Amino acid sequence: MLNKIYVALIHYPVLGRDGRIVSSAVTNLDVHDIARTSRTYGIKGYYIVTNLPAQKDIVEKVIDFWTNGFGKNYNPSRREALRLVKVKEYLEEVLEDIEKIEGEKPVIFFTSAKKRETSISFKEASKILREEKRPSLILFGTSWGLPNEISEMSDYIIEPIRAGSDYNHLSVRAAVAIIIDRLIGEETIIGRDDS
Amino acid sequence: MLNKIYVALIHYPVLGRDGRIVSSAVTNLDVHDIARTSRTYGIKGYYIVTNLPAQKDIVEKVIDFWTNGFGKNYNPSRREALRLVKVKEYLEEVLEDIEKIEGEKPVIFFTSAKKRETSISFKEASKILREEKRPSLILFGTSWGLPNEISEMSDYIIEPIRAGSDYNHLSVRAAVAIIIDRLIGEETIIGRDDS
Repeated sequence: MLNKIYVALIHYPVLGRDGRIVSSAVTNLDVHDIARTSRTYGIKGYYIVTNLPAQKDIVEKVIDFWTNGFGKNYNPSRREALRLVKVKEYLEEVLEDIEKIEGEKPVIFFTSAKKRETSISFKEASKILREEKRPSLILFGTSWGLPNEISEMSDYIIEPIRAGSDYNHLSVRAAVAIIIDRLIGEETIIGRDDS
Repeated sequence: MLNKIYVALIHYPVLGRDGRIVSSAVTNLDVHDIARTSRTYGIKGYYIVTNLPAQKDIVEKVIDFWTNGFGKNYNPSRREALRLVKVKEYLEEVLEDIEKIEGEKPVIFFTSAKKRETSISFKEASKILREEKRPSLILFGTSWGLPNEISEMSDYIIEPIRAGSDYNHLSVRAAVAIIIDRLIGEETIIGRDDS
């Protein structure tokens, strides 16, 4: 049984090209694509984390256009996906929001394009998700990936996609789609809010 | 053994909102994301099919910028992905190009978000890809999907992703990523040109 799964796309703190902590810009299609993937797989909420007020404004305008504005009737399926999106400034606020909704903190899954010693396989991660009764949160990084301060907050680190490949530069939109499909596949998630 | 796999993203002929045949516009991120997914999974070539000269020009300029222009040194991994991209006006030209490269026509796989009676499962499609000695070509539609005239040219129709879901509006970028991952997964493709 898959139960109350959330995803978050982190724009701060992430690694920059030189390995330092930066705040990355939100890409419009990340909002749309990952919302549509989330809706397709029964994800209960999709958090966009950015600490920059101007970026927060942009995302909120996009969501508003498609859920309340002209887009609502123009493309109802887009509305259905974007209703899952929430913008938060910090990961801590995401955890608090999930705790408020579910009554307990989520189990946190960390994803990365780089191999780590402590990582678990997709098969193991999928099994844990199935057996877990608490809500789950899967984290995705933008820019050059998530920093150690985020992996240290996480319960599980999932192995990279195609770790054996000589090329690991999937777009985050593609990586999220593949990871969610590997974890959930054709199964139905229980506890998704369809109201 | 996975062998000489190609993908094509079709902008003409595709179905419009009302079911009639239209020519869709090329989305810049479709070029990038699907090129990066292709490179990650060892796909040998990624064809963008559009019959509109202005659209063809745009894609060729994007490719040129990243493979020969400023982008070449700014982001070498992007170059490596975009080197796989070719623009063709019609699907027939794609088939001819693959025949010229491989010495024989490809086996054609059709994809769709809609269930069809003759569709095969991902597992079957993956097995066929593994056993096939000829090159393979996987077709993806934009807009409201690929028309019957394309399915009739195809050898196999692959089942939809999450056919049991009440929502089937993945972005084509996400759908391509998931389908390629389901067919190829962690395996290495033989015969990819790394020169």
